[in-house]
Amino acid sequence: MRILESIWLDRNSRFTLQEQLVRQIKEYVQQERLKRGEAMPSTRELASELKLSRNTVVYAYDRLESEGYLESRPRSGVVVSSSIFLSAHSKWPVEVGKVSFTPASAVALKSVLRSPAPFRPCQPDVNLFPLPIWNRFRGRVLRREGRGLLQYQAGCNSGIPALRENLAAYLRDSRGVKCDWRQVVITAGSQQGLFILANLLLKAGNRVYIEDPGYVEARLAWQSVRAKIEVGPVDDQGLSLPRGPSHRFSLIYTTPSRQFPTGVSMSLPRRLSWIDFAARTRTWIIEDDYDSELRYSAPPLPSLQSLDRNNRIIYVGTFSKLLFPSLRLGYVVVPEILLDGFEKLKHLIDDHLPLIDQATLAAFLESGAFFSHIRRCRKAYAERQTLVLDLFRSSDLPLDFRYTDGGMNLTGFLPSGTDDARWSAHLRAAGFDVPPISHYSVRNRAPGLIFGFTAFSPAVIRSSFERASKVLHECARG
Amino acid sequence: MRILESIWLDRNSRFTLQEQLVRQIKEYVQQERLKRGEAMPSTRELASELKLSRNTVVYAYDRLESEGYLESRPRSGVVVSSSIFLSAHSKWPVEVGKVSFTPASAVALKSVLRSPAPFRPCQPDVNLFPLPIWNRFRGRVLRREGRGLLQYQAGCNSGIPALRENLAAYLRDSRGVKCDWRQVVITAGSQQGLFILANLLLKAGNRVYIEDPGYVEARLAWQSVRAKIEVGPVDDQGLSLPRGPSHRFSLIYTTPSRQFPTGVSMSLPRRLSWIDFAARTRTWIIEDDYDSELRYSAPPLPSLQSLDRNNRIIYVGTFSKLLFPSLRLGYVVVPEILLDGFEKLKHLIDDHLPLIDQATLAAFLESGAFFSHIRRCRKAYAERQTLVLDLFRSSDLPLDFRYTDGGMNLTGFLPSGTDDARWSAHLRAAGFDVPPISHYSVRNRAPGLIFGFTAFSPAVIRSSFERASKVLHECARG
Repeated sequence: MRILESIWLDRNSRFTLQEQLVRQIKEYVQQERLKRGEAMPSTRELASELKLSRNTVVYAYDRLESEGYLESRPRSGVVVSSSIFLSAHSKWPVEVGKVSFTPASAVALKSVLRSPAPFRPCQPDVNLFPLPIWNRFRGRVLRREGRGLLQYQAGCNSGIPALRENLAAYLRDSRGVKCDWRQVVITAGSQQGLFILANLLLKAGNRVYIEDPGYVEARLAWQSVRAKIEVGPVDDQGLSLPRGPSHRFSLIYTTPSRQFPTGVSMSLPRRLSWIDFAARTRTWIIEDDYDSELRYSAPPLPSLQSLDRNNRIIYVGTFSKLLFPSLRLGYVVVPEILLDGFEKLKHLIDDHLPLIDQATLAAFLESGAFFSHIRRCRKAYAERQTLVLDLFRSSDLPLDFRYTDGGMNLTGFLPSGTDDARWSAHLRAAGFDVPPISHYSVRNRAPGLIFGFTAFSPAVIRSSFERASKVLHECARG
Repeated sequence: MRILESIWLDRNSRFTLQEQLVRQIKEYVQQERLKRGEAMPSTRELASELKLSRNTVVYAYDRLESEGYLESRPRSGVVVSSSIFLSAHSKWPVEVGKVSFTPASAVALKSVLRSPAPFRPCQPDVNLFPLPIWNRFRGRVLRREGRGLLQYQAGCNSGIPALRENLAAYLRDSRGVKCDWRQVVITAGSQQGLFILANLLLKAGNRVYIEDPGYVEARLAWQSVRAKIEVGPVDDQGLSLPRGPSHRFSLIYTTPSRQFPTGVSMSLPRRLSWIDFAARTRTWIIEDDYDSELRYSAPPLPSLQSLDRNNRIIYVGTFSKLLFPSLRLGYVVVPEILLDGFEKLKHLIDDHLPLIDQATLAAFLESGAFFSHIRRCRKAYAERQTLVLDLFRSSDLPLDFRYTDGGMNLTGFLPSGTDDARWSAHLRAAGFDVPPISHYSVRNRAPGLIFGFTAFSPAVIRSSFERASKVLHECARG
């Protein structure tokens, strides 16, 4: 037991004496400096040895027993467990070994959580999110619904009904989406919606028509089921229709409200052409409406889904952009004929999603706090957009911002032939996250840079712009 | 504006006057009793008409504007929005139509959340979960980490590192699992882990060897990629090895700690045979360790993963059974060679999982609250198991409980030839959720009933048993 005398307790540590004691005894057992079956000193002895209150040692032993490090034996008192697994072949997690007494969680989490670098696209300003209000609603639903929200709930496989109903009403009011609430399925972000649709609608070799440039993660979803990708150019009316005779697609994926990444809004005639195309060729169109709420000047055009009379449109959305990204809640408005298959696949992937968050969101939507939040964001983001545009206008840089009626990003087109990836790399080296259009392109050759402005305060935008514009001027000079 | 005089406000309602006002104006607009472009009374007029404070009307108008029902016009004041989408083709959600003023969420949620009926298997007692402690940790991590936990975090696609490290240490200590924390990937319950593994490891036509009887949702995951299922019988040493010459499988799925649903624990010789088999035939074995913590008598046998020297074992687990099911967090310990593919697929399905819950869980594990909780559950569940066994022993029913060393369920085998589905149906008609073994069987013919006991207090167990045993006696009489 000599070894226990070397235990070292730091009374100024942010960790309790009990935690420090537990960790060190664990380490000794792992290192086999305390052997299996070896008797431990009594709690009284160790407490007096280490000048601790006896309770501290009692609780530490208690915890070590429950974790299987120590065990009580009828006559011999507390001993090192003989059944503990000693993992000669496994390593301590590196952080734990290096920073003694400091729990890995305290070290690692801070170094891992980052704020987006300017001008990372598609990021909301999480500082605008009313977290205290959200937490109050969370407490309220937990009190109101009791422990039912902790259970597995077979009736919630497609989402909590209250959330789906409120969402259906919201989508009807704000986007004209026509649906019964039972068609609204809650997904783990819109990405899960796309993945499920890929698996539901596509087989290897099926043809999918997508925007070029376009959203990469969606393309990966289609490719994961080995669909054949065909790209259509995006002009100033949005995704253009396919040319030529071979018009059979299994799926069309588009972002009509605000094309990602160009920012163009699909014109009404183009919308009607697509609806007609889908009906004629019996093709599904996925309408990814990822940031339609964020319009600053005119109201948005009606969603494709609201214009369609043939139930060929699958409407996909997310709360990541409006609330906060790490919430991971999105939704799909599924045509009735696909609903059963969609729900089965959803069930297979992960049963239902976390219920407490869903119930909180339902109450948040119901209360109107959601709308106040959107209004606040819209106001702040509109100002930031104006600021970015003003800064660029006064800068004499060869960036052409064509589509500026809303959204989270401003796409600056560069003169034809510019190597936008090189510009983006220079910006990255200076600490900026400004992806080039070429990153999202298959055949598209129009270069440009995508500046997100929503996540950054006006002060950050100003100071970042000052530094970034120097880099951009250097790029422009060659 | 006559119509607005018919607004009816209930001052005793649980909903504020503002909420009632908003909802009724919305309904009038939807019903086109208020027409597009129609001028609204001034807030002062309406407030006086309805005997409301003016602020109530101001805030209600404000909200209706932000939701697009009303709009302010330079000279005409507030009018009904001309761009509102009137959804002649969509219905109000049924609940809203029926129960005026009562938000759908309040009505629907209660009717949807259920407690498990006795004796539903595999359900923890959520009343034992220390929700106030959990909420305190949640508040603490939110304060400590600030808004970083709300952002999208590319570094957390496989889970928050702190959680993965704590989990790796816990799995090493409690189950001998050998791994670096980077191999621990957090999934949306164990079901997502199985789904990803199916897509990663299997192609259509590949052969998968599973337990019979066995876990249905796992089988569905293999079948979703059109793998060929072959079943192996479960004897009193666990899943038996395949006979005959054709020994090539792409995947073997087993629950060695406690076979589901029979409850048998795989013997050590059988474990070693499987490890040898996997090495010889270069097959992956998925070890689903869904409730190994819940042992009441002897310590559990070492996990397959801890015995294997060839990295052929993929270890899958969940927090649904230990904490609460609606949390939806599980994990997979992925062999290094598969890690890259697994993480890519995970990213494609849903990016990362909700971060606040993960950070809370990391702190919960770190603090020892996790272990106190497990200890409390283990104690309560052991008592409940003893109670159920005692009740059956004194009941003279033809149920044979063979495997009783732990877990959440007790499987009572019935005499050969008994129609266990009929017994289960009778129990269901009387309000009990006791699935028959045949529900989980492909070729297996041994009948039985699976009684979960963990979710129910001793009092509920006693009273339920009294009623259920009557049904069982009737079944036994034919």
